[in-house]
Amino acid sequence: MEHPLNELSAVEAARAIARGELTSRRLVTACLERIEAREEIVGAWQFLDPALALEQADRCDNSPAMGPLHGVPVGIKDIIQTADMPTCYGSSIYANNRTAVNAECVKRLRAAGAVIMGKTVTTEFAVFAPGKTTNPHNRLHTPGGSSSGSAAAVADLQVPFALGTQTAGSVIRPASFCGVIGYKPSYAWFPLDGVKVLSLTLDTLGTFTRTFEDAAVIASVLAGIPYQHPASIAIRAPRIGLFRTPWWNEAGNETRTAIEAAAEALARAGASINEVTIPGFEDLRDAHLKIMYREIADSLRYEYENHRASLSARLQGIIDTGRAVGVSEVQGSIRIARRGRHQISEIFASHDVLLTPSTLGPAPLGLGNTGDPIFNRVWTLLGVPCITYPGGRSSGGLPLGIQVIGPVESDERLMATAKWMRENSGGPAEIRRS
Amino acid sequence: MEHPLNELSAVEAARAIARGELTSRRLVTACLERIEAREEIVGAWQFLDPALALEQADRCDNSPAMGPLHGVPVGIKDIIQTADMPTCYGSSIYANNRTAVNAECVKRLRAAGAVIMGKTVTTEFAVFAPGKTTNPHNRLHTPGGSSSGSAAAVADLQVPFALGTQTAGSVIRPASFCGVIGYKPSYAWFPLDGVKVLSLTLDTLGTFTRTFEDAAVIASVLAGIPYQHPASIAIRAPRIGLFRTPWWNEAGNETRTAIEAAAEALARAGASINEVTIPGFEDLRDAHLKIMYREIADSLRYEYENHRASLSARLQGIIDTGRAVGVSEVQGSIRIARRGRHQISEIFASHDVLLTPSTLGPAPLGLGNTGDPIFNRVWTLLGVPCITYPGGRSSGGLPLGIQVIGPVESDERLMATAKWMRENSGGPAEIRRS
Repeated sequence: MEHPLNELSAVEAARAIARGELTSRRLVTACLERIEAREEIVGAWQFLDPALALEQADRCDNSPAMGPLHGVPVGIKDIIQTADMPTCYGSSIYANNRTAVNAECVKRLRAAGAVIMGKTVTTEFAVFAPGKTTNPHNRLHTPGGSSSGSAAAVADLQVPFALGTQTAGSVIRPASFCGVIGYKPSYAWFPLDGVKVLSLTLDTLGTFTRTFEDAAVIASVLAGIPYQHPASIAIRAPRIGLFRTPWWNEAGNETRTAIEAAAEALARAGASINEVTIPGFEDLRDAHLKIMYREIADSLRYEYENHRASLSARLQGIIDTGRAVGVSEVQGSIRIARRGRHQISEIFASHDVLLTPSTLGPAPLGLGNTGDPIFNRVWTLLGVPCITYPGGRSSGGLPLGIQVIGPVESDERLMATAKWMRENSGGPAEIRRS
Repeated sequence: MEHPLNELSAVEAARAIARGELTSRRLVTACLERIEAREEIVGAWQFLDPALALEQADRCDNSPAMGPLHGVPVGIKDIIQTADMPTCYGSSIYANNRTAVNAECVKRLRAAGAVIMGKTVTTEFAVFAPGKTTNPHNRLHTPGGSSSGSAAAVADLQVPFALGTQTAGSVIRPASFCGVIGYKPSYAWFPLDGVKVLSLTLDTLGTFTRTFEDAAVIASVLAGIPYQHPASIAIRAPRIGLFRTPWWNEAGNETRTAIEAAAEALARAGASINEVTIPGFEDLRDAHLKIMYREIADSLRYEYENHRASLSARLQGIIDTGRAVGVSEVQGSIRIARRGRHQISEIFASHDVLLTPSTLGPAPLGLGNTGDPIFNRVWTLLGVPCITYPGGRSSGGLPLGIQVIGPVESDERLMATAKWMRENSGGPAEIRRS
């Protein structure tokens, strides 16, 4: 192996294990060593029991490969239930909480041979109040949230992949801040059973990886659909819509430059680039906020009514806001969202993907705030698949993300197009050392 | 006046009052007399205080006309809150329940001059367990539900119009069974604030009238948009899709014949008639059921947890079913609904309206069951506007409904097209005596 074992992608590792060139124990040990060396700084893990991980690795090494992730470790965001590890939802209310069964996504990963490495840090109930995780590129900066630990662990080469969830921007934003590939699939593409619900109409399970191939393999496992290698879908001269959004001028200079540079490089590589405007896009942001707040207030009613003092002031405020959203406001917002889904499907009739910022800029300084999901929330509302990939660095050395949006339920094609875009926009082919 | 006063439409009555030819007191008195003569048989009213109605009528007679419904009485379904009358939601849990304020729709009707006549019978929480109301055409038959009293009161000439709500088929079905015009508008077209929520993503406020003009005036008042007379929208040779639905063969012979006869008459009148099939329509029915059950279980959680013994066995069963619907099932159903909305918008690109049954047949015998909403639930899920108008009688003398569906948020045009269809399909021009 030319690289340290913990730097292998999930697919590389699974292949080496399948060929007998590597054992799961050696791989997991290398990852555990990386974690041990870095956890004090990065703080990605809410729960990690090395013995439990090695036990699973040994079981893999003593049985024939059952699936495409045989022996490969994964980090699981701590709002996803695991039967043999605590699930605390980022809240002291659930300290040491144990659930009877694994979430459906955990079951599918285990059936594909994955080793559940541990539980990664989430913000409080996957909302805004941050946990202990730092940005692996600079510990003074936020890793983003709510899937903070998953993004940081993958970026810091502690595990090849991890699961997160997005209700506003909780996959794309931390992936962008930490410099990995974040993938929020189409609505309801992956099963959410056994994941703490914030908003039934918005919550989406997603992945953090360092390669597109990994994202595609994991997606096939989680969605329960046959694997299609991204390179097997021919992408030639994609029709790319450059969508600056109404918040373009709020984005930092470096982010705007990165997006424009990517567009220019892609045009040189043969893509057609077309500026897109979407009337009423601001209304979709407000619709997302109202629906999300109202649904969060409903979903966390038990905790609000019985453990209010254990909720952060910020979350209490969000729940209070949600409880005050009237029936007409919610229904009006749902109506706007339905219009928006119709509108975006018309835009994708003449565009393969949209190119747009992942975040306002690189990860902001400070750990008290996980950053603004302004460039994410509308896409979550619309249910369209989103991918962010690293597209250069800020002057401070922090990653900048490029976001690619595709039509709903065309996730494999979006993945292939994003891979083509990355390979044709001058960035490094894959992510290695941080 | 050529007809008894209680037979006037809302618009006719309001015009006569505005011209000084009629007082609200005389009109309301005529309606009260009709109710008094019929209530023992029809049982449309949950709450009626003649003195309170007459007091409002006198106030109207002593003030200048403020709106298009000045002095005209209306029946309000008893899941809609009224500050000066009890609101019991069809449940003993809320016997004599008083709310502090009027629902927004009641405020708008009052601002337009309407006299709130009383509260009409609803099934238990607008779900399935029926109230006391009978079908005005035959007391041994159900009036349909859940807006049973509103449909029966308007059909029985007790009030010119009434409000109802539809989550599955609770406006169109009772309107069809009772032989009046039922209108379920586009999703979120009328404000639902102050109406007991069953399902935020489905609940829709609707109307019962005896004329299209009344429906259009009331719609403008409730939606807060300028009034457009249905006859002012020119309808020539509408493109009508005849949609039999997957349940055509479950519909009775008389209903199928009525729809086919209407299609033939409309073709002779110059409409283009085109058979429509919608792949996957059955899946939309199942999606509606899962979403509705799950949302009902959430909405009635307080009543279920604190007053379970006071809920009907049937409602308890529905709530138990709803609580057992998993996250993936709901999300999968929402995904199917989103696809369906896209699909139906494509169908309306080449059709002005769809012609389809309102119900399986005429009102079934017996009062224990309000009938099957099979021909209604998918449209409610899709959020498209629906109108039913009387299209003949069964051999037993019961009304048969013709349902017309339009594209979302084109309600005025649907209303005008439905009026054209009724006038050109050989039925009587307007509904008079039962």
